Amino acid sequence: MFTVRVPATSANLGPGFDTLGLALDLYLTVEVKKANCDITVYYKENGEQSVNINPTDNLIIMAIEKVFTKAGQTISPLTLMVDNKIPISRGLGSSAAAIVAGIFAGNELIGRKYSTKQLMQWAVDLEGHADNIVPAIVGGFTTAMIYENEIYYQKLLTSHDFKAIVVVPDISLPTKQSRAVLPEKVALQDTVYNLQRACFLLASLYNGDIRHLNLAMDDMIYQPLRKQFIPGFDEVFKSAYDNGALGVAMSGAGPSIIAFVNDNIENIGLAMQEAFLNNSLTSKIYHLRPNETGVSIY
Amino acid sequence: MFTVRVPATSANLGPGFDTLGLALDLYLTVEVKKANCDITVYYKENGEQSVNINPTDNLIIMAIEKVFTKAGQTISPLTLMVDNKIPISRGLGSSAAAIVAGIFAGNELIGRKYSTKQLMQWAVDLEGHADNIVPAIVGGFTTAMIYENEIYYQKLLTSHDFKAIVVVPDISLPTKQSRAVLPEKVALQDTVYNLQRACFLLASLYNGDIRHLNLAMDDMIYQPLRKQFIPGFDEVFKSAYDNGALGVAMSGAGPSIIAFVNDNIENIGLAMQEAFLNNSLTSKIYHLRPNETGVSIY
Repeated sequence: MFTVRVPATSANLGPGFDTLGLALDLYLTVEVKKANCDITVYYKENGEQSVNINPTDNLIIMAIEKVFTKAGQTISPLTLMVDNKIPISRGLGSSAAAIVAGIFAGNELIGRKYSTKQLMQWAVDLEGHADNIVPAIVGGFTTAMIYENEIYYQKLLTSHDFKAIVVVPDISLPTKQSRAVLPEKVALQDTVYNLQRACFLLASLYNGDIRHLNLAMDDMIYQPLRKQFIPGFDEVFKSAYDNGALGVAMSGAGPSIIAFVNDNIENIGLAMQEAFLNNSLTSKIYHLRPNETGVSIY
Repeated sequence: MFTVRVPATSANLGPGFDTLGLALDLYLTVEVKKANCDITVYYKENGEQSVNINPTDNLIIMAIEKVFTKAGQTISPLTLMVDNKIPISRGLGSSAAAIVAGIFAGNELIGRKYSTKQLMQWAVDLEGHADNIVPAIVGGFTTAMIYENEIYYQKLLTSHDFKAIVVVPDISLPTKQSRAVLPEKVALQDTVYNLQRACFLLASLYNGDIRHLNLAMDDMIYQPLRKQFIPGFDEVFKSAYDNGALGVAMSGAGPSIIAFVNDNIENIGLAMQEAFLNNSLTSKIYHLRPNETGVSIY
């Protein structure tokens, strides 16, 4: 028996579309036991009772199966106890976490046959994008690059002690719907806008210089198009900045909004929540820190 | 009497179009003397005799004048002894260097009235872009961001001891011509391509991890369009990589090509030069290091 724990992740961080990501200390935890006959999955979300769910089409099982298949084996009977604290379809990498949990559980079950690089590749193949998978595996702030379908990444060494507020509105926004509004082409000046901001953000994180995170986290590629799906988006940003947030961005494909903060943390979260409420949306507030370890097995 | 020294600069560095820049230890040096009646400019390029040139339309004089005008003063009689080692119209920031020299000389002449931030702003106003101006002023690797016409930058703290080869072909390529081929729109996938590479490059520099500079320095925005003006462009890249270069990029708007190298330095330069020669272009090879100080006055 072993347990796999995978962090939630926030991709893009404003300017770094399909590039930057950050692991957060909010987890999907999967207890894996060998069984005799069947594959059984017990699933529970935050504080609720475990329910026995159908293992077919379950992302964790699919990912475990992928590793067995790659190893030329058939998936063995298993019991999974899933404890998921990551809100689903909210832009916090819940599917990436499920895939990473399954891939790493699979590798553990067949005797740690594969390298992290190989496992990361399979996880990205299943997910379709690297920006959540990479930080879910290695932790921290990351920048990912795809070259000829292969993933390369760097983990950022930041000196600043970041605190994040993530406000999660009670609407789900499937990544598919969110990606459908993306244009085929981007104005050159918008491309430059994001390039300048992504690089500035990254250098700011390295330099521990948080003075202009608000400017650096702006984006002209995906937020202007996706915010139509998130009632109160602009007001939530404004309320966060008005109350002293350092930088604010749509988390991944949304609808969650992440704010980096130094102090006045309680008030910033409440102000963001209120802005959603003014748009008839209830929401949950998470006070989070970067997770530096990524996936862990114990 | 005082002397202003400004480094050459290489902008873009592949993926970081209008964003990244690097100062190099190749200089424009301007000796400034107060005179009695006239403005006189003596100019010499690498090893040649000084010639008395027309101060009208001279970028250094224009920049000095800008500072005097901003201070509500009229430019005073001066004699400039210009020693320029930066090739002109070759993508090495010669005009940025002239502007920075003039702006900082002007500030010195009126008694150091203005901050570096203010002087940088005026220099960018004259140049039109920040990517050469910023490293020319602060030195090192830089990332620049414009927000509402104001410049923000971060200087990168790199741990790797970089060596650069710059091969300068004997054709001039005015930035204007080079910018004219840029498209109004960029494919989203090309935007992501450059975002991923610019961030990866920057993180590689910080992390001192030079393994994938070749992939990180690739670009889909300006090089594919501008290389038509540089005979042998692809062959020069290939010859540099074949001989062990770490990463290669068009320097600024071209036609110079910059290669980061660890060893085999002589051969890489000669191979790049030969590739130009195979395309009927003579060229000069420069072995350079990053300049870390930027503009200096002594």
